[in-house]
Amino acid sequence: MPQVKVTASAPCSSANLGSGFDTLAIALDAFHDRVTISDHDGFKLTGEGIPLDPERNTAGLAAIALLDELGLERDIEIRIEKGVPKGLGLGSSGASAAAAVKALDAYFGLGLTQEEMIGYAMIGEIASSGSPHPDNVSASIIGGLVLVTHDDDLRASRINISGDYRFLVAIPDLFTENKTRAARQMLPRSIPLDSYSKALGRTASLIAGLMSGNRNLIRVGMNDDIVEPSRISLFPYYYDMKRMALANEAVAAAVSGAGPSILMVCDEMSDMDSIRAGISEIFSRYNITGRVIEARMSGGAFVEGSPVSD
Amino acid sequence: MPQVKVTASAPCSSANLGSGFDTLAIALDAFHDRVTISDHDGFKLTGEGIPLDPERNTAGLAAIALLDELGLERDIEIRIEKGVPKGLGLGSSGASAAAAVKALDAYFGLGLTQEEMIGYAMIGEIASSGSPHPDNVSASIIGGLVLVTHDDDLRASRINISGDYRFLVAIPDLFTENKTRAARQMLPRSIPLDSYSKALGRTASLIAGLMSGNRNLIRVGMNDDIVEPSRISLFPYYYDMKRMALANEAVAAAVSGAGPSILMVCDEMSDMDSIRAGISEIFSRYNITGRVIEARMSGGAFVEGSPVSD
Repeated sequence: MPQVKVTASAPCSSANLGSGFDTLAIALDAFHDRVTISDHDGFKLTGEGIPLDPERNTAGLAAIALLDELGLERDIEIRIEKGVPKGLGLGSSGASAAAAVKALDAYFGLGLTQEEMIGYAMIGEIASSGSPHPDNVSASIIGGLVLVTHDDDLRASRINISGDYRFLVAIPDLFTENKTRAARQMLPRSIPLDSYSKALGRTASLIAGLMSGNRNLIRVGMNDDIVEPSRISLFPYYYDMKRMALANEAVAAAVSGAGPSILMVCDEMSDMDSIRAGISEIFSRYNITGRVIEARMSGGAFVEGSPVSD
Repeated sequence: MPQVKVTASAPCSSANLGSGFDTLAIALDAFHDRVTISDHDGFKLTGEGIPLDPERNTAGLAAIALLDELGLERDIEIRIEKGVPKGLGLGSSGASAAAAVKALDAYFGLGLTQEEMIGYAMIGEIASSGSPHPDNVSASIIGGLVLVTHDDDLRASRINISGDYRFLVAIPDLFTENKTRAARQMLPRSIPLDSYSKALGRTASLIAGLMSGNRNLIRVGMNDDIVEPSRISLFPYYYDMKRMALANEAVAAAVSGAGPSILMVCDEMSDMDSIRAGISEIFSRYNITGRVIEARMSGGAFVEGSPVSD
C-alpha cells in the first residue's frame, strides 16, 4: 500500500575532482533538493523555477522511467523543492533525480537497491546533459566519495576516505542555459597517449591520497590537463583561484563538475579565512559576483522522518 | 672511503597492471638481478649474456649517469648477474639498473634518496626502450606496489595494499629482440574520450580495490581496452588465458609490462592448480613452450649482507 506522502532529500555533489572525469564525485552537505510524492489523480509535477514538463525535468524523467519500468500507475504528485542552485556545477539535476527516486522507492515500498536507484536517476540526467551520466546521481544517492566504473555494467562504489576535510565552494553568479550540454561539446574528442598515462597516474594518486590521508597525493591527483583546460572559457578565474588556494595551503582545488563553481579541499593546515578572502578578491577582479560556501562531505539521499545512515 | 666490494639485489617487477599504463608496477620475488661493484683500475662491465658496451646496458648507463653527475671516478668493476629473464615483460632492464644504483649508493656511501636512485636508474631504461620509463625501476627500488606520477616532477610512491595475494606469472619462451621499443610503437597515439574516462575509472577502481581488499574492484580495475589490445600480436593467447584464469577465480589478470608474460592475481578463493594447468594447456594450444612461476609481492632493492626492510 502506498503511503499518503513521502519526502526525500538528496545532497548536491561535485563531480570529476580534477583528474577523475566522469568517474568520481563527492556528495556535499552545502545544498539539498527535496522531493515529495503524494497521492493524486493523474500525474502532476509541481515546483518553483523549474520546467514542469516531465520530459524536460530530471526528477520527472527519472520518475517516469521508474513508474513505467515497474508498471506502476502514474497517479502521483511530485513536488520538487530546489535547494541546489542550477547550472553551477553542483549536480543540481542529479540531486533532483536522486531525491525523486528515493522518495518513489519509499512511497511505493519498492526496496530498490542503490544500483537500481542510480539506474533510474541517471535517466533523469538525460534532461540536462543529453546523455545519462551517473557520477552526480551516484554521489547524491550513495553519499560520500563515489567511484563509477563502466565495465560490463555500471557500478558505483563508495570509497572510504581517511582524514576530515572541509570544502570551500566558490560559486559565481554565472548561470548559462544548457551549460552541461555546451560543456560536453567543448571536450576534446581524443587524448594524446602521454596525457593519458599522466591522467591515469593522477587518478590513482587521488584515490590513494584520499584513502590514506596523504595530502601530497591528493594535491597531485586533483590536477588535470585534459578536461578543465578545454572548458576554461566557462570559468576564466579558475587558475588564479587554484593558485591562490594552494598558496594558502588548500590540499587541492578543481573545477566542480563542468563549472563554473570551484571546489577547494581544505584540512587543518589550510588557511581558510585567507582562501575565502582570496576568492572574493578574484571574483571582483573578474567583475563577477559570487559567494563562498563551506561544506562537509555528505551522506546520501534519505527519506525525511526515517533513520539516516551515513 | 669506498668499500672494496658491494653486492645489491633487485627484484623483477610487473608494470601496468591492466589499466595503469606507465603509472603502476608491482615488485615480485620471482627473480632477482644482482650487481656487484668492486675496486678496479678503470671502468669495466662484466656479466654473461648481456651487452658489455655500457651504452647498450641498462646497468652501465645508469652507473655512468650516476658517476658523471656526482663527479665520481670511473675506477670500478660492475659485475651483473642476470636472474630476471630478458624481454619477457618482467622489468629485467629495470631490475639491473636498480641493483646497479643501489650497489653504487652503498659502495660510495652516497646516502641517495629513493627518488634520486630512481632518477639514475631510469636513465638506464633508455638502453632498452629508447626513453626513460620509471615504472619498473621504481618498483625494483622501492618494492611493493608503486605509483608513479609525472607532475612538476617525477614522484614514485609505495601504496600499501590490503590482502595477501599470490601471483602466477605465465612466461612463454617468446623472446623478441628490442621488444620494448617495438611494443611502444604499437601503441595508439591518441585515446577516444569515452575510453579515457572508462580507463580512469578502472585505475581508480584498481587502487581502491588493492587498498581496501575488494576483489571486485581489483578485477574491474585490471581490465584495459587501450594498451593491451594494441599489442595483442605479441601475446595472442592472452584473452584465452585471462578468461580461463577468471573462470578459476583468479582475482584478476593482465599483461605483465609489454608482455609476453601474463600476470594473474590470486587469493584464497582462486583455484591455482587449475589455473596452472590451464596455462600449460593454452601454451600447448598456441604451440608455445613456457612455464608458470608463483610469486609474492617483493620488497625493494637491497644490499646483500645489510639489514633488509620490507
